[in-house]
Amino acid sequence: MRIEARLAELGWNLPAVPKMPVETTFVWVRRSGCRLMVSGHGAQHLDGSPAGPFGRVPDEVSLGEAQESARLAALSVMASVQAVVGDLDRVTAWLAVAGFVNATPGYPQTTAVLNAFSEVVVDVFGPHIGQHSRTAIGVAALPLNLPVVAAAEIEVEPA
Amino acid sequence: MRIEARLAELGWNLPAVPKMPVETTFVWVRRSGCRLMVSGHGAQHLDGSPAGPFGRVPDEVSLGEAQESARLAALSVMASVQAVVGDLDRVTAWLAVAGFVNATPGYPQTTAVLNAFSEVVVDVFGPHIGQHSRTAIGVAALPLNLPVVAAAEIEVEPA
Amino acid sequence: MRIEARLAELGWNLPAVPKMPVETTFVWVRRSGCRLMVSGHGAQHLDGSPAGPFGRVPDEVSLGEAQESARLAALSVMASVQAVVGDLDRVTAWLAVAGFVNATPGYPQTTAVLNAFSEVVVDVFGPHIGQHSRTAIGVAALPLNLPVVAAAEIEVEPA
Repeated sequence: MRIEARLAELGWNLPAVPKMPVETTFVWVRRSGCRLMVSGHGAQHLDGSPAGPFGRVPDEVSLGEAQESARLAALSVMASVQAVVGDLDRVTAWLAVAGFVNATPGYPQTTAVLNAFSEVVVDVFGPHIGQHSRTAIGVAALPLNLPVVAAAEIEVEPA
Repeated sequence: MRIEARLAELGWNLPAVPKMPVETTFVWVRRSGCRLMVSGHGAQHLDGSPAGPFGRVPDEVSLGEAQESARLAALSVMASVQAVVGDLDRVTAWLAVAGFVNATPGYPQTTAVLNAFSEVVVDVFGPHIGQHSRTAIGVAALPLNLPVVAAAEIEVEPA
Repeated sequence: MRIEARLAELGWNLPAVPKMPVETTFVWVRRSGCRLMVSGHGAQHLDGSPAGPFGRVPDEVSLGEAQESARLAALSVMASVQAVVGDLDRVTAWLAVAGFVNATPGYPQTTAVLNAFSEVVVDVFGPHIGQHSRTAIGVAALPLNLPVVAAAEIEVEPA
């Protein structure tokens, strides 16, 4: 429970995995052998409900608020991974993160927003496991009008 | 031919695989072992030509029209996979879907649009094979001004 | 050094791998076995610094300029891959390219922009190794206001 201890040390709590509305057919994590394909996640409250602020960066949501949203999205991903593998110590590598920012056209700071996500991952898992390839793309619209959504591919120990 | 029978039962026909214009250098499906990397696909007519309506959701294309476009995009993906593996019964898992909606800034219903894609996949392949991780991102522009484009990673039996 | 010879024959020079700013925590390439997950790359000068023009296609950056930016982005990806595997001859397959264009809403030519990327890859690596699945998505904003950014998954020989 090394990773859980590290989260506690940093003062971060994982949220509950969001309940799927009845009509949805995708899953938060799809496992294939040692690979976890993780759906797009956004910021959540501890009960798993979506966490604001909502809207576009930077005219409705500030850079600082977007970075906090990105940090919470990283915790949401970890919560979904924990629900699948039981113990986050089983994560052997964060491989790739696809990060999307709900952005005003031409907003040049998408990298700064997603750095907040990546920093949480590396703070918690350390650079050897946590460092990942990444995209940081500004988009026109995100589910629930969230400011930040990130998907990931993560490698875990054999089941 | 279980999957083909299920498609017939549901009344869905797969389109022809679109002919590549001479100048393009990408491929619709790239195989690596048991993994198929599937390029972004949109709605197609049965002859493989692009199917409208074209434009932005929801101001040029309604939510309902976008969902129908998403359903057709799912059939386009299946057609391209069938062309590579011969029989869709060889599909063992839909792993990940990257869904993009040509969206008005701030449009909050990208999830509802892509649910139509995911529902076709699960209706045809069943939840065990069909359930996948997913992103549903609203973007500024898509090829041919299509309302919906989706890429996927799909797992198949060894060749 | 077949690939390096081919690059020289075509008159293309790989840039230096861009130095990471101190604060960034992602990596340009994440390796997992024979898979390389490559972060989003844009056009670079030979010294690794970002290369303009910057801005939105087609109202600030023309289609032709965007295609040149896409070509340079392909060389940036190759440079980062070379830095990890030593010799580009070790690349066995370009699997998937996720291409993003900084685009005016509704811009229908994202495919034409990314074709320039794909053509460089196939010109250098040949169709057997170079052909890949691809998305070509028009987005609201890209890091540094680059006109084109592309991420990739690439397969290499065992280490």
